[in-house]
This record gives sequence, C-alpha cells and structure tokens, in this order.
Amino acid sequence: MRFTGLSAFPITPADPEGRVDVAALRRLVARLCAAGVDSIGLLGSTGSYPYLTREERRRALDAALDEAGGRVPVMVGIGALRTDEAVRLAQDALAAGAAAGLLAAVSYTPLTDEEVFEHVATVARESGLPLCLYDNPSTTHFRFGPELIGALSRLPGIVAVKSPGQEPQAVAGHLAALRAAVPQTVSLGYSGDWTTTEALIAGADAWYSVVAGLFPQVALDIVRAVQRGDAAEARRLDARLGPLWALFRDYSSLRVMFACANLLDLCHAAPPRPILPLGEVARQRVAEVIRALDLR
Amino acid sequence: MRFTGLSAFPITPADPEGRVDVAALRRLVARLCAAGVDSIGLLGSTGSYPYLTREERRRALDAALDEAGGRVPVMVGIGALRTDEAVRLAQDALAAGAAAGLLAAVSYTPLTDEEVFEHVATVARESGLPLCLYDNPSTTHFRFGPELIGALSRLPGIVAVKSPGQEPQAVAGHLAALRAAVPQTVSLGYSGDWTTTEALIAGADAWYSVVAGLFPQVALDIVRAVQRGDAAEARRLDARLGPLWALFRDYSSLRVMFACANLLDLCHAAPPRPILPLGEVARQRVAEVIRALDLR
Repeated sequence: MRFTGLSAFPITPADPEGRVDVAALRRLVARLCAAGVDSIGLLGSTGSYPYLTREERRRALDAALDEAGGRVPVMVGIGALRTDEAVRLAQDALAAGAAAGLLAAVSYTPLTDEEVFEHVATVARESGLPLCLYDNPSTTHFRFGPELIGALSRLPGIVAVKSPGQEPQAVAGHLAALRAAVPQTVSLGYSGDWTTTEALIAGADAWYSVVAGLFPQVALDIVRAVQRGDAAEARRLDARLGPLWALFRDYSSLRVMFACANLLDLCHAAPPRPILPLGEVARQRVAEVIRALDLR
Repeated sequence: MRFTGLSAFPITPADPEGRVDVAALRRLVARLCAAGVDSIGLLGSTGSYPYLTREERRRALDAALDEAGGRVPVMVGIGALRTDEAVRLAQDALAAGAAAGLLAAVSYTPLTDEEVFEHVATVARESGLPLCLYDNPSTTHFRFGPELIGALSRLPGIVAVKSPGQEPQAVAGHLAALRAAVPQTVSLGYSGDWTTTEALIAGADAWYSVVAGLFPQVALDIVRAVQRGDAAEARRLDARLGPLWALFRDYSSLRVMFACANLLDLCHAAPPRPILPLGEVARQRVAEVIRALDLR
C-alpha cells in the first residue's frame, strides 16, 4: 500500500513495569478509526516502542489490529538496537497483520551508512514486511542522507520514508532531493507536527502526526484542506494550534500527549521511567491549551 | 573503594546471536590480571553492554569475577533504557560481587537533568551498589554538567565519575570544575584514550581505557610514568601510540579492538550487528599498526 494523508501516532499507555494497558490503547485506536484517519502509526517514538519488550509490543499490536478491524491500515514500529531483534519484531508484525513496519536506525555505538544499509536490508529480506524508513536523528542520532535513502528505496519492500521536520524555507528543497533519489512508488512523509503543514503544501505524501494520535480531527482538517488545494485554510488551522506546538517544543510531544490523555481521562498512565510525567505547572499549561483550543 | 590509576575495558566476545563466549572473555580478563591493572571495566561501551540481554550480562559478569578471583576489582556496566531494568542489572552486579556499577544516561527520548537525576538516584537507592557516573554523550547524547554531577555525587553510593575525553587545553579546567562540584571522596576519571595522558598529568584520578582492555602494558607504562611524576616520559609513550589513536578516531575504538583481538587469535568474534567488523583495507591497517608498535 501507499501511505498518504494522515497517519496518527498514539501513545502506548502502560503501567510502571512496562505492561501495556490494552483496554486504554483500544480506546485510543477506536477514536482514530472513528475519525477516519488514513493510517495508524502504532508503537512509534510517541508510542514508546524502545521501552517495551517484544512480548508487550506484540500485545499492543494484536489489540490495535483487532480494534482497527481492517478499517484503517496499521504501521508499527519495529526498531531495535540489535539487527536480529528488529528482524524478530518485523516477523511478529507481519504475522499479526500489520500493513508495514517503521524502522529507525536505533543506535548506541554510532553507526555508519553501510551499517544502517545492511541493518535495513537484513530486516527487509528476512521478514518480508513492507518497511517505512524512519529518519529520526533527535532520538537515534543517525541522519539518513538522500544517497542512503535512494539506495535503500531500491530494495524490495521499502515503501515509504518518514523524515524529520524541516524549517519552512527548507522543506521544498528537502522533498525535491528525496523525490529525485527514490522510485515514484515510494511515499515521502514528514513528522514534527508544527512543521508538517508546509511539508504537505510543498507536496509531501503523508503527515506522520503525534497530535493526531489523540486529537485526530484538528490534524485531519489541515490535511483535507491541503488535499483540496486550500493552502490558506491549512495555514490558518495550523496557526490556530500554535499554543499546542509551543508546548511540544517546550516539553516534547510525548510528555505533552501523556498529560493530555490523562487530563481527558482516556488513560491513567505515565511515560516509561526515566521519562517523567510533566510537573504541576506544565500540566496546568496543558490543561489551559486543551480548553482554549477546545481539543477533545 | 576509590577508583584510581588504570581501569581496563575489554570487549565482550559473543556469537552472532548475542551469546557471550565466556572462555574468550576469561582469556581477556586473565591478561588484565596478570598485567596488574588497577581495575577492570567489564561491559562498558567497548564491552557492548546495551546489545546484550540481562542473562548474558550476568554470565559475562560471573565469568569475569571468577577469573579475576578477587585480585582486581571489577566495575560493570549496568546501563539500560528503562530505570527498572537498570535497577535489576545493578542488583545482579551487587549479588555477583562487582565492586561498582557504571551507569550511563542511556536514552532514546532525550532526557532532562531532572530525569537523569531521578534515574541515578533510583538505581543507587534500590540496589545499594556503589556507582560510577558514566558521562558518554557520544553514545547517549546526554551531557552531564558539573551542577548535575555535584548534586548526584552527594547521594549515598556515588563513588566515581567517568568523563569523556577533553581537548588538551580544556582538560585542566574541566577537572577543576568537577573537583569544585564533588566531595573529595569521589574519584574523577576520563575515557577517550588519545586524550587521557593529559588528563592524568592534570591530576585526574583514573584512566578508563579501551586500549588497556587488550594491551594493558602500554597503558600501564603511561599511568605509572605519570604517577612517579615523569610527565615527559608519559607524553613520549602516548605519542608513540599515535598510529593506534588515529585508527580509533577513524574507525572507533570498539571496531578496532575487535579487529585486534581477532588478529591476535584471542577470540573469533564480531561486534554485535548492526555494527560491522572492519573491512579488509582497515584490518590491514590495524595489522600494520600492531606490528609497528609491537602490541601483544
């Protein structure tokens, strides 16, 4: 399949020992299906995938796929520090029925381009799962260049690229460099919520969205405005979310989304330690923004 | 105990599935004990700790402690992405008889100072294991500032700090800032082999050394020269190792040490994938340097 439009990335509620709260996760997935997002990005960085065991990742995947019931395709994070572990996670995802795997260059020892190429090629070959390359230098500290993406996108099974947010003046050039590097069949999308409206206007195929994981409608409104050619309306809707983007920049979108989900009684869960829940002052700011923007 | 002098960090030979070759590890540890290093740093970054399961880390620790037989104290890497996992690894280390745990701020989601403080405090409190703070921004992408180190070093059980290599002109200032921040009982040491001679001359307590994990004598000669006040001889010995430091900078010390250990028939093991063994050209360079410097 080709990933286009809005891909919504929910948090993964779990208890302090790392056991996933599948009932709460189902509630989040059900909201996304009801809203009509184009795909769901389970166990992304916002979904805390590196902090969960293989078993818990499988429990989360089974619950989400069952809840989605084939209505919405599910992409799932299969990143791991070891190549053999990423292969096993990709095999689990294929067996469970995921539409694609999202594969980041998770690293501790800094990796070379050749090492990341072999890592991705091994996972693609040994799992048979369609893959989205996940370029997330803020967490992995590896940066995919257009040359590496071009080489990888020629492997069987590489269907999409998820790039990090770009500055508004840089996104068109970034997108053009990637388009020139990859086959037409490969979808090009962006994360970094507060930068993605400009990416969509510049012609990106997909928005990999954290805010949509909890508040799909505000993100869908932007995507649908761009899709019908109304860039001005998309920019107006994006600017309206400015106070939320400020929270994301100040506290990280993951910490803010956990606070939002708890404030809305959608779950009662904290991020995995060592990540701490937001303190009282920050949570009050979050509550005010939810109220002011009428997020629900 | 107070960590001073030379702490030698061996690689951890393991098979492609991540099962530790304890016979080969014992050979490496025996070399270090015979050479008379001041301590051994098991399962450091060079020892691939984040790539090994808890069970394999325990197997490596048991084998190394048994081989050391109380002759040389063993510090062991207990870092993990989750706080609860780091606590369990610290408890394992204490039960096995390690002298201290080496705790890095392993991260995926970037961490705040408060989060790292709570992470370390929890591990210290819940394990009772003496800890060395492991500041390694090149792998964790978290940087410990003097203020955070000062606050942490006042917790019961924090006995040492392992800092990353500094530029020659910066190391005295870096060391002075840390000395001013921590109690006298806390030992201050450095890694980054090609920068540590100047750190020792500037008054650092310990060298956390990758080269010493395989070639302890060349590192001991430098440490003992500094300890008897002969900075000129220490600098001469350090300069002689220049070709090896160049390899470390070009290929990373971990990849070079794996190549050396294989060339010397001390083990037949590759780094954990996705990290690749050095290619043929690089390995020939390593073999030439081993020969030219008479490393054994």
